Amino acid sequence: MGMVGGGRGAFIGSVHRMAANLDGKIELVAGCFSSDPEKSKLSGEDFFLDPDRVYGSYAEMAEKEAAREDKIDFVSIVVQNHLHFDVAKTFIEAGINVICDKPMTQTYDQAVELRDIVNNSDRVFALTHNYTGYPMVKEARRMVDDGELGRILKIVAEYPQGYAVGDVEGDGQGKINNWRSDPNIAGISNCMGDIGTHAHNLVRYITGLEIDEICSELTAFIPGRELDDDGNNLVRFEGGAKGIIYASQISNGDENALNIRVYGTKASLEWHQEEPNDLIVKYANAPRKVYRRGNDYVGEQASKYSRTPFAHPEGFIEAFANIYLAAAEAISDQIDGNSAPEGGYDFPTVDDGVAGMAFIKATVESSASDQKWVKFPKV
Amino acid sequence: MGMVGGGRGAFIGSVHRMAANLDGKIELVAGCFSSDPEKSKLSGEDFFLDPDRVYGSYAEMAEKEAAREDKIDFVSIVVQNHLHFDVAKTFIEAGINVICDKPMTQTYDQAVELRDIVNNSDRVFALTHNYTGYPMVKEARRMVDDGELGRILKIVAEYPQGYAVGDVEGDGQGKINNWRSDPNIAGISNCMGDIGTHAHNLVRYITGLEIDEICSELTAFIPGRELDDDGNNLVRFEGGAKGIIYASQISNGDENALNIRVYGTKASLEWHQEEPNDLIVKYANAPRKVYRRGNDYVGEQASKYSRTPFAHPEGFIEAFANIYLAAAEAISDQIDGNSAPEGGYDFPTVDDGVAGMAFIKATVESSASDQKWVKFPKV
Amino acid sequence: MGMVGGGRGAFIGSVHRMAANLDGKIELVAGCFSSDPEKSKLSGEDFFLDPDRVYGSYAEMAEKEAAREDKIDFVSIVVQNHLHFDVAKTFIEAGINVICDKPMTQTYDQAVELRDIVNNSDRVFALTHNYTGYPMVKEARRMVDDGELGRILKIVAEYPQGYAVGDVEGDGQGKINNWRSDPNIAGISNCMGDIGTHAHNLVRYITGLEIDEICSELTAFIPGRELDDDGNNLVRFEGGAKGIIYASQISNGDENALNIRVYGTKASLEWHQEEPNDLIVKYANAPRKVYRRGNDYVGEQASKYSRTPFAHPEGFIEAFANIYLAAAEAISDQIDGNSAPEGGYDFPTVDDGVAGMAFIKATVESSASDQKWVKFPKV
Amino acid sequence: MGMVGGGRGAFIGSVHRMAANLDGKIELVAGCFSSDPEKSKLSGEDFFLDPDRVYGSYAEMAEKEAAREDKIDFVSIVVQNHLHFDVAKTFIEAGINVICDKPMTQTYDQAVELRDIVNNSDRVFALTHNYTGYPMVKEARRMVDDGELGRILKIVAEYPQGYAVGDVEGDGQGKINNWRSDPNIAGISNCMGDIGTHAHNLVRYITGLEIDEICSELTAFIPGRELDDDGNNLVRFEGGAKGIIYASQISNGDENALNIRVYGTKASLEWHQEEPNDLIVKYANAPRKVYRRGNDYVGEQASKYSRTPFAHPEGFIEAFANIYLAAAEAISDQIDGNSAPEGGYDFPTVDDGVAGMAFIKATVESSASDQKWVKFPKV
Repeated sequence: MGMVGGGRGAFIGSVHRMAANLDGKIELVAGCFSSDPEKSKLSGEDFFLDPDRVYGSYAEMAEKEAAREDKIDFVSIVVQNHLHFDVAKTFIEAGINVICDKPMTQTYDQAVELRDIVNNSDRVFALTHNYTGYPMVKEARRMVDDGELGRILKIVAEYPQGYAVGDVEGDGQGKINNWRSDPNIAGISNCMGDIGTHAHNLVRYITGLEIDEICSELTAFIPGRELDDDGNNLVRFEGGAKGIIYASQISNGDENALNIRVYGTKASLEWHQEEPNDLIVKYANAPRKVYRRGNDYVGEQASKYSRTPFAHPEGFIEAFANIYLAAAEAISDQIDGNSAPEGGYDFPTVDDGVAGMAFIKATVESSASDQKWVKFPKV
Repeated sequence: MGMVGGGRGAFIGSVHRMAANLDGKIELVAGCFSSDPEKSKLSGEDFFLDPDRVYGSYAEMAEKEAAREDKIDFVSIVVQNHLHFDVAKTFIEAGINVICDKPMTQTYDQAVELRDIVNNSDRVFALTHNYTGYPMVKEARRMVDDGELGRILKIVAEYPQGYAVGDVEGDGQGKINNWRSDPNIAGISNCMGDIGTHAHNLVRYITGLEIDEICSELTAFIPGRELDDDGNNLVRFEGGAKGIIYASQISNGDENALNIRVYGTKASLEWHQEEPNDLIVKYANAPRKVYRRGNDYVGEQASKYSRTPFAHPEGFIEAFANIYLAAAEAISDQIDGNSAPEGGYDFPTVDDGVAGMAFIKATVESSASDQKWVKFPKV
Repeated sequence: MGMVGGGRGAFIGSVHRMAANLDGKIELVAGCFSSDPEKSKLSGEDFFLDPDRVYGSYAEMAEKEAAREDKIDFVSIVVQNHLHFDVAKTFIEAGINVICDKPMTQTYDQAVELRDIVNNSDRVFALTHNYTGYPMVKEARRMVDDGELGRILKIVAEYPQGYAVGDVEGDGQGKINNWRSDPNIAGISNCMGDIGTHAHNLVRYITGLEIDEICSELTAFIPGRELDDDGNNLVRFEGGAKGIIYASQISNGDENALNIRVYGTKASLEWHQEEPNDLIVKYANAPRKVYRRGNDYVGEQASKYSRTPFAHPEGFIEAFANIYLAAAEAISDQIDGNSAPEGGYDFPTVDDGVAGMAFIKATVESSASDQKWVKFPKV
Repeated sequence: MGMVGGGRGAFIGSVHRMAANLDGKIELVAGCFSSDPEKSKLSGEDFFLDPDRVYGSYAEMAEKEAAREDKIDFVSIVVQNHLHFDVAKTFIEAGINVICDKPMTQTYDQAVELRDIVNNSDRVFALTHNYTGYPMVKEARRMVDDGELGRILKIVAEYPQGYAVGDVEGDGQGKINNWRSDPNIAGISNCMGDIGTHAHNLVRYITGLEIDEICSELTAFIPGRELDDDGNNLVRFEGGAKGIIYASQISNGDENALNIRVYGTKASLEWHQEEPNDLIVKYANAPRKVYRRGNDYVGEQASKYSRTPFAHPEGFIEAFANIYLAAAEAISDQIDGNSAPEGGYDFPTVDDGVAGMAFIKATVESSASDQKWVKFPKV
C-alpha cells in the first residue's frame, strides 16, 4: 500500500499503519507523508521505504505509482479534511484503489461528486468509519437483521468526549484549536464532523435506518470558536422510529464514550465502545444476556473479524484493522478480477461517506433554523 | 400519620408505609384507603388501625382528625393524580400537614393555586420526589454547591423503562393502560408526568439550574394511546448550560434506569439509580473517583441520610424513607413551634411541585409546536 | 418484640430494629438495652417504650415478660458473643421465641448445647445470618436445587473488608480493637467468627454442601492481636467439590465484599453482596445471563422476599428484614398453633448456628496444625 | 525474525506473528513451522517467505541461519513444551537471540540448565509471559515500586477458565485432551503450568515478592486425566505477606479471568485482564480511583507501551506485542553493541522462566504431600 499524509507524529497515520500491519498481509511501500518533500522523505526513512517511492506531492505519487509495474494496490488517505476530495479523486482517476479517512470530504457537494467518480470507476473506495469494525458491532447488526429485536422503536447514540473542556475557561489556545476547528480545513462542523458522524454511522450500520428529519442544537462552548464543540440532536427515522444522537468534546472526563442503545419490540441491545467485547441484550421479561466476543455462539461475521478466542480482549486497533481486512478482500478481488462474494464486503463505502456529509449538513442547517424539523438529505 | 389512598394491592401506598415505618418514629393511625368505605375498612384492618379512625371519605377524615386531641401529625396522599389537589387543599385547610405523591396535581394551574394555599398556611407540604432522597444524590448536590465541578456546561438526564413495550404490538389492553394513560385522571401527559418529572427534579436538585427553553418530541408508541409513552427533550438552561432530558416506557428491557450526568468545567459527575450507592466523578486529567455511600469522606448531608456503613447497600425504600425523615423533621418543628434549622429542610416542596407541572406543560406544548423552542414557565 | 442489647449507638441493634419495623408487622414493646439499668432506661425512652417494660437485666426481662398476658412474641438478642448462650437459653427456657445475632455462641460446645435446648423446646430460634435474606441469594439456591448448575465442582467464597487495616501500622489502639478482638468476649476467632461464618453460611445456604476437610491459615496482622484479622482456607466438600473460603479485615479499601462463585458442570453462578439485586449465570457456550431481582421470571421464593418491582434497588436492611419476616411467620404459626408450611421456613436455624461454630473451631484448629487437612466437625 | 513451530492453524503462532507485525518493525523472514517439511513449506508460503529460508528441522534452521550474512535477528519458539529446551539451547548456542513461549521448559531442571546457558552467552532470551505486557500492569508495578500501596500484606491472584468443563461429565475426548494434558509433552502439570504460571508471574512482576512456602491442592476433575485441571494454593511470601493463587480450567463460563488484587497498608489495587485498560486503586478512607490507560497522568512505562490515547481500548495482542517491543529493543542493542538502558528492559527473562518452573514443581509436590507447607525453590 501507499499512504498520503500521516507522517511523523500524526496519530491517525500511525493507527492506519498498525491496522495495515497487523495481519501481515499488507506492506507499506510508497508514500507522500507531507506536503514538504523534506519531511516526507524523513518519514519515508522511518518506515524503511525505498526513497524512489517517497514523493513530494500526492499528484506526483499517483502518476508515478500508476505507471509502475509493481504499483501499490491501494492508497491510504490520512490528510486533513479539505484535501480528501482532491486526493481521492486523483488516485481513483489514476486507477488506484483508495482507503480514505473520514469525514469523506470537506463539503456535502464534494461527497456527492466523489460518489459519482467512484461509481463510474471500478475501483474500490473504503472509508475508515472504524467503529463498525468491532466484532460485537457486527453481531449487533446481525441481531437486528435477523429480527431478534423485532421492530425498532427507539435509538440512542452518544459520543461524549472531554478533551476540549480545558479550553472553555482558557485562553482559547488549547489543544483542540487545531485544524479541526478551522472551517477552511475542517468544513462547516467540528464536533459533528469529527465524532458525530461516527455515532450516526454506527446507527446506520447496526439498524439500517435512515434519518428522515432532524432537530439539532450545536454549541461552541469554547470562546472564539467558529465551529461546534457539542451537539444534541432529536431524530425521526424513516419508518417511525425515534431517537437521540449526540456528541461532545467538552464532556469533562469522558474519554471516548461512543455508546449505542437500540430498542425494539422484542428486545433491545446496547454496546459501549470502551468495553467493546461485550454486547448486552435486554428483554421485557427474561434475564439480560451478555454476548461476548470470541465465543462459538456469536455469529459468522463477528467470528470472521475476531483474531483471538473469548476474553483475550480485542480493541481499537483490531477494529480498525478489520476495515483494512475487509477492504483488502475487495481490493484483492478487484486486482484478481474476481467478483464480489455473496453478501458483499463489510466496510464503509462511498455511500456511507455521503451519508456522513449529509449528517453534518443537516445538523448545521437545523441548528441555525427556528424551524423544528429539518428534512435530512436523501442518501 | 394518616393516609389517603394506598389500600390493599396499591404499590405506592405500600412503599409510603415502609418508608414511614423504617425508622420507628412514625406510626400509621388513621386512613381513608379507598373511596369505597367497605374496602377502606378492610385495609384499615390490615394495618391494625382503630376502626374509628378508618374513614369512608377524605373530607370526613380531614374534618374528624382535625377535631381530635390526638389528631394525626400529617397525612400521606397517595391517590390518583386528579385528586391530589382537592385532597391536599382539604387537609392543609384543615390545618394538617401533608406529604403528597407526585406529580403534585393534575394541571399546572392547580399547582400554582396549591402553592398559594400552602404558602398562605403555616403547614408543611412535602412532595415525594423520592430519588432525591438517595444519599449520593445529596452528595452530588453538595459537590455542585461547593463548586467542585466548576461552571456547569451540560446535563444529560435519562429515565428509560421498558415495562410498557409489550403493548406496542399488542391489543392495547396491556398493563400500562391503567389510569396513568387516562387524561381524565393523569392529566395531559403519561410518561413525562410519571417519570419525566423525576428526571427533571433530579436535575434541579443536583444543579439548581432552571430550564429557560425546551424543545420536545413526545410519542405515543402504543396504538390507541392518547398520552405519550416516550419523550425526548433538548433543553437550554438559564445561564447557558445545555442538556438532554428524556424518559421512556417502551425502552425494552430497561427497568428503572434513571441516570444523570452533569458536566462542569472542572469535573463531571454521574449517578445511576440502579447502583445508587456510588457516585462517579470524572476529571480531564486525573483518575476517576468513585465516592461510595457510608464512608467518612462523604459530606454531612449524605451521611445524615445513611443508615448503615459503607457497602451495606441501601436502596429505594431507604431513599423514600429519607423524604419522610426530612419531612418529619419539619413537621415535628412545626408542631413544637420550633423554627427551621439553618439551611432549611431537605425534602421536595410545593415549589418543586410547581416546577414539575411546568415541565409537563412545557413538554406537551413544545411537542405540539412547529416552533423549535418553547419558553419554560417561570417557577 | 423485645430486645436484649442494642441500646444507643449500637449499630447492629439499630439494624435489627429497622429490619423489624420495615413491614409494619412487628412492634418493639420491651427491652433490656444495657446491663446498666440507667442506660437501658434512656434507650427505652428513645424507642417510646412503656418504662415498665424496660428492664435492668435480661433475666428479669425473661421472667417478667413470660408472666405477662401480653408478653412479647419473641426477643431479639443483640448482645456480645459471650452472652448469646446464656441469654438465648434463658428466654427459650422461659418459653419465649428467640431471634439471635451471630455467631450463635462463644464456643462450639455451647452451640451444641443450645441446639439441644432449642430442639427440646417447641420455641422458634432464628439466627441472623442476614446475607441469606437477599432475594437473589434465594434465587441462587433455587437454581442449585433445581439442578440448573448440574453437579457442583468448585466454590469460591470471599469476604474481604479493609476497615482494620489502619491498625496494622498503628499503635494498636484503632477501631478494630474492640470486644471482637478480645477472646474473653468474642471467642477463639475474630475474623473467621465475625465474617468468615457469613461466607461459610452463604455457601451452605446456596449449595447445601457441607465441608469434609479444611486447610486454614489464619493471620493476625495487627500487632499485639491475639485473634485473627485475616484467614484463607482451602476446602474439600463432602461429595468431591473443592473450594476456597476466605475473609479479611485488613484488605485495604474493600468494604463489605462478600462474593460467591459456584461452578457446576452445566453452569455457574456468581453473586456480589455489594450489587445484591443481580445474579450472574455463566455457561460454557451460551451468553451470560443476568437475573435481576423483582422480575416475573425469578423464582417464587426470591419474589416472596422482594418488596418492590425490578430496579428499585433493595439492600442490606431489606435482606435483614427478610430474616425477621421469615422468623415472624414461624413465630406467628407457633403462637397460633399452626403447623409449618410445606417446605418449612426460610431463615437460619440453630443448626446453622452449630455449623458456624464448627467452622470457627475447624479453621482455628487447622491453622495451628502442621497437618494439611483437618476434619470438619459433623453438623 | 524466524519462527519455530506455529504453522497453519496454531493459535499461539498466529498471536506471536500479529504481535511481531503490529509496529511495522519486525519482519518474519525464516521459519521451521512443522517437523513435517512438507507442512512447514506450506506455512512458509502462507507467510510469503523465501522458500530457501523455510526449513524442515529447527537444527537445520539454526545452522543455516547462523551462517547467513542477513541472518535472522532472533527466533520465536512456539513449539510444544517438551521441545522448548532443545530448541532454545540450539539457537542460543548458534548465537541467535530467542523469544520463547512459556512455560519455559518441560522440567525444572531444564529451566535451571537453560538459565546457565543463556547467562553464559550474551544473547537475549525473552519469555512471553504476555500479561505483563499490559500497560496498566506496568502502572500497577510502578505504584508498588513507588510505595503508593505501603507495605504489601496480602495478594489474591486468580485465573479461572471454563473451557474444559465439558469434559468433566463427558467421554474424556473433549478439546482439552490435547498435548497439554499429556505428561510426556506438557510436563508434570497441565493447569498450573499453562495458566497458574501466568498468575504467579503477574504477582511477581507487580509486587516483586517471592514465595517462601506454599500449600497446594491440585485436582483432576476430568475422568482419566493424569494432570491437574484445577489448583488452589495458599501462599506465604518472603517478608510476611500472605496470599492465594488459584487457576482452573473447569470453572464453567469463566473465560480468561486473570485477576489480581494486591493489598497494602496504604492502599490496594486490583486489575482484571478482561478489562485491561483500567486499574482500580482503593483506600481506607478516600474515594476509589480508576486509573485508565492512555491518560497523561499514568506513569512513563505504561505510557511507553500504549499505542493509542485513552479509551481507544487496547487488548491482548497489543500486550503481547509489548513483549516483542521490549525484546526487540534489547535485541537491537545487542546487535548494535549498545549497552542496556538504565533500568534495563521490560520483558520476562530466563529468571522468570525458572521461577515459573519452580511454581509448577512446588505446587505439584505440595499437592502430593500431607505436610501443610512446602518450601518454594529459591529462584
